[in-house]
Amino acid sequence: MAAVDVAGEFETIRRLFAPLAHPEWGRGLKDDVAVVPSRPGHDLVLTKDAIVEGVHFLASDPLDTVSRKLLRVNLSDLAAKGAEPFGYLLACHWSERCGWPERMTFVDGLRADQKAFGVALLGGDTVVTPGPASFSVSMLGWTPKGRTVGRAGARAGDLVFVTGSIGDGWLGLQAAQEKLSLEPDRLAALIDRYRTPTPRLEFAGPIRDFASASIDVSDGLIADLGHMAEAGGVRIEVELELVPRSAAGQAWFDGRVDEQAALEKLVTGGDDYEIAFTARAADETALRREAERRHLRLTRIGRVMAGQGVVARFAGQPVPIDRPGFTHG
Amino acid sequence: MAAVDVAGEFETIRRLFAPLAHPEWGRGLKDDVAVVPSRPGHDLVLTKDAIVEGVHFLASDPLDTVSRKLLRVNLSDLAAKGAEPFGYLLACHWSERCGWPERMTFVDGLRADQKAFGVALLGGDTVVTPGPASFSVSMLGWTPKGRTVGRAGARAGDLVFVTGSIGDGWLGLQAAQEKLSLEPDRLAALIDRYRTPTPRLEFAGPIRDFASASIDVSDGLIADLGHMAEAGGVRIEVELELVPRSAAGQAWFDGRVDEQAALEKLVTGGDDYEIAFTARAADETALRREAERRHLRLTRIGRVMAGQGVVARFAGQPVPIDRPGFTHG
Repeated sequence: MAAVDVAGEFETIRRLFAPLAHPEWGRGLKDDVAVVPSRPGHDLVLTKDAIVEGVHFLASDPLDTVSRKLLRVNLSDLAAKGAEPFGYLLACHWSERCGWPERMTFVDGLRADQKAFGVALLGGDTVVTPGPASFSVSMLGWTPKGRTVGRAGARAGDLVFVTGSIGDGWLGLQAAQEKLSLEPDRLAALIDRYRTPTPRLEFAGPIRDFASASIDVSDGLIADLGHMAEAGGVRIEVELELVPRSAAGQAWFDGRVDEQAALEKLVTGGDDYEIAFTARAADETALRREAERRHLRLTRIGRVMAGQGVVARFAGQPVPIDRPGFTHG
Repeated sequence: MAAVDVAGEFETIRRLFAPLAHPEWGRGLKDDVAVVPSRPGHDLVLTKDAIVEGVHFLASDPLDTVSRKLLRVNLSDLAAKGAEPFGYLLACHWSERCGWPERMTFVDGLRADQKAFGVALLGGDTVVTPGPASFSVSMLGWTPKGRTVGRAGARAGDLVFVTGSIGDGWLGLQAAQEKLSLEPDRLAALIDRYRTPTPRLEFAGPIRDFASASIDVSDGLIADLGHMAEAGGVRIEVELELVPRSAAGQAWFDGRVDEQAALEKLVTGGDDYEIAFTARAADETALRREAERRHLRLTRIGRVMAGQGVVARFAGQPVPIDRPGFTHG
């Protein structure tokens, strides 16, 4: 009907996607379905994210970073739940600009990240749209039976931790849109964090072992802590000065006059794909040891109290956060 | 950025999708992931299809039929493999015309078909796009371990069967586009078949028990038989006169001067979502009994030979099929 697939659906599957298929379960993408054997003693964990050009990624973003980010945002969801990913289904809604070279670039990104994160393509669909390109992934993983870590579960007295650093996703978006003035290598580092965030899969094990509640930071740190507070029926207090910044984030921060306003930007920007979680104070030492073993930065940023909602403090005083999280579209 | 979600992502999930969630495994759509316990002795079967407005469905199609067709085309894939569906992940890429009333209509269709087919929503994503609406579903089901029926497996001497009738999907599309002149009730029946095809889930058991190879008819009967012939390394011969037509299809056929050309249209049109499969001749009686028990029409349309490709015969003579299947966009 309306849109013409310049590259061809069957050719796209055969030449580009079949080589990415799980060697056994994907059936060479020739059989309409994937077949995955049950894994005794484990639960299947599933998540699905969709992205749209001009909404979740920029038309100027290279397509190999688009495909990598698509996998990574889904992998990040599993990591925060303590799950081990094994495969994914992919839907590509190609726009008219997506000919062979663009599709090959997209697939290059998938190939690189399949290798980096140990996942394989199980199946999917490829269609064309007269509108902007969009893509979705259903990511599958396993957790030992009953061990998936939810948003609920935080208890009064627990501590609040976050992996890595917060704010680079938002800063990277500003940088990619040429709205920041910083040294070129700082800008490049931030854009890289925005385009290819790092899912903290290596920390899934400690999350399973020690976290009482957990979430990946996608909407914005304060918003995502809010989700945990709401789900757990608790109050979460955060000290804004403790929220970890990257070297590039610190360079940006050092140029701000209003420190409080700058911190608010970082904790509401979103797109960080770090893990925010709560754990018992008695487990802090063990958690720090696990993080050090993985060379992963781990920062205690607050605590869980009786009550509800999120309270952010700056210089010891509660700060009203007007914009509790960036909502796409 | 570009597109504004008039209805709101969180509100859409909470008000429209959460009530559709699997009561246990979907976690109320509040936890980033779904968690499905392993089912011992069974394999997980997965498929994913995406649809785009103006390509796979018409802008004039009511959105409740769009959502039902989306579920049904995925359910059809599982039925043809002998699998029992249990749940799905959904990505909605809403266009700007999709406000609350449109989304509610879309969800009405999901609710009706969840009940009709015994599946539940496990999770997904809802985003907006400045282009035409598109949607994708990842459907999940189970088969007893090792019992999924593939495209390969047809052997020389096997018979070829098809459920229901062939051609209504294509005729229904013509009718919806006002390209057919038939009595109003015929047109309505065809449009209904195009918009809400019937996945043959009730025949999944007999397919598992008796089919040597199986596929659902989506690209067009001849094209899909071609997929089975290629996968199995065999030749499939079909008698065009034997291909079953519905009452409405017969009414259309009766008005054609060139019978052969008319039959070719029906067997290449696609969008039928019947099951085409091969089975041993010795199992024909048992298969007919299973079909009768379900009040399901089952027709033998050809046989499997040594060789390759698909041969369609009309009046006993091989007919060249120029257009071996309708390929969407």
